[in-house]
Amino acid sequence: MEPVSRHVRHQPPRVLPQPRPCWVACPQFRSQVNLSRLVRLAGSCGIRNILTTGKGKIDPDIARDAANTVHIDVRRSLPPRLKELRSDGFRLVGLEQTTRSECLYTYHFPRELVLVIGHERHGLADELLCLMDDLIEIPVYGLPYSYNVVTAATMALYEYCKQHQ
Amino acid sequence: MEPVSRHVRHQPPRVLPQPRPCWVACPQFRSQVNLSRLVRLAGSCGIRNILTTGKGKIDPDIARDAANTVHIDVRRSLPPRLKELRSDGFRLVGLEQTTRSECLYTYHFPRELVLVIGHERHGLADELLCLMDDLIEIPVYGLPYSYNVVTAATMALYEYCKQHQ
Repeated sequence: MEPVSRHVRHQPPRVLPQPRPCWVACPQFRSQVNLSRLVRLAGSCGIRNILTTGKGKIDPDIARDAANTVHIDVRRSLPPRLKELRSDGFRLVGLEQTTRSECLYTYHFPRELVLVIGHERHGLADELLCLMDDLIEIPVYGLPYSYNVVTAATMALYEYCKQHQ
Repeated sequence: MEPVSRHVRHQPPRVLPQPRPCWVACPQFRSQVNLSRLVRLAGSCGIRNILTTGKGKIDPDIARDAANTVHIDVRRSLPPRLKELRSDGFRLVGLEQTTRSECLYTYHFPRELVLVIGHERHGLADELLCLMDDLIEIPVYGLPYSYNVVTAATMALYEYCKQHQ
């Protein structure tokens, strides 16, 4: 007897006509696990570029095949490269709770995006905050009143992919 | 000089008139880290109940304060409790790529929800698959062609919270 629904796991991905014009930028995290998780997330979202500082070391057991397809652009500091990307036509969108953040639920993402995420503890540094074209935040409904940094990035990239299929 | 935007991190959460009528159900994961991450996610989404099998051991460094607010209902097997929840009015929604899954982008979540997620390697077991009222799946756009199990749950719970604010 056949079950009502059959697994079709690891389907071929939706074919994108070209790689997404999207970067994810982050400082050196406290935990290298978070960078590796971010790489797997980016790869599965069809995003090929991550900008970061620090060592950029990736654990391939966590990042899986994305360790080979996602390019990690490691710089000594983020602002100079972010300014270049902006002059190349990318919009800098920071994920942070601030006095001028828009809610992710209603935000319209630009196609040419740099999603800038902050440090686990300290969030987006002021030197990054003042560079952002837009800031977005995600509602929180209970303890511990904060999402893990990659969890927050997951929600933002989900919304971006949904808006730009 | 004041920066253009000021941090307002760890704002008080949106006050829910009552706890969300939502459960997350999962088998015993390969990695206990995933259960602890799921607890933090649930807590921040205002979800108070997780149903699972196995030991239900939580790492408070990962789950944070949600370790105290999210109740872990540990059973020997999931189906009997899932059937009870369904007869209490909850709709069982499985997160799995199958021949009859709807896309998360267009799915309308019931308010009374049990989100059922599968094992990291094996996904939703057939004994769970055949119990589901609905099945949903998330588009994947690149290598490694799969989201981590908590990453997938993050996307689904983000969409649920957005639809039921």
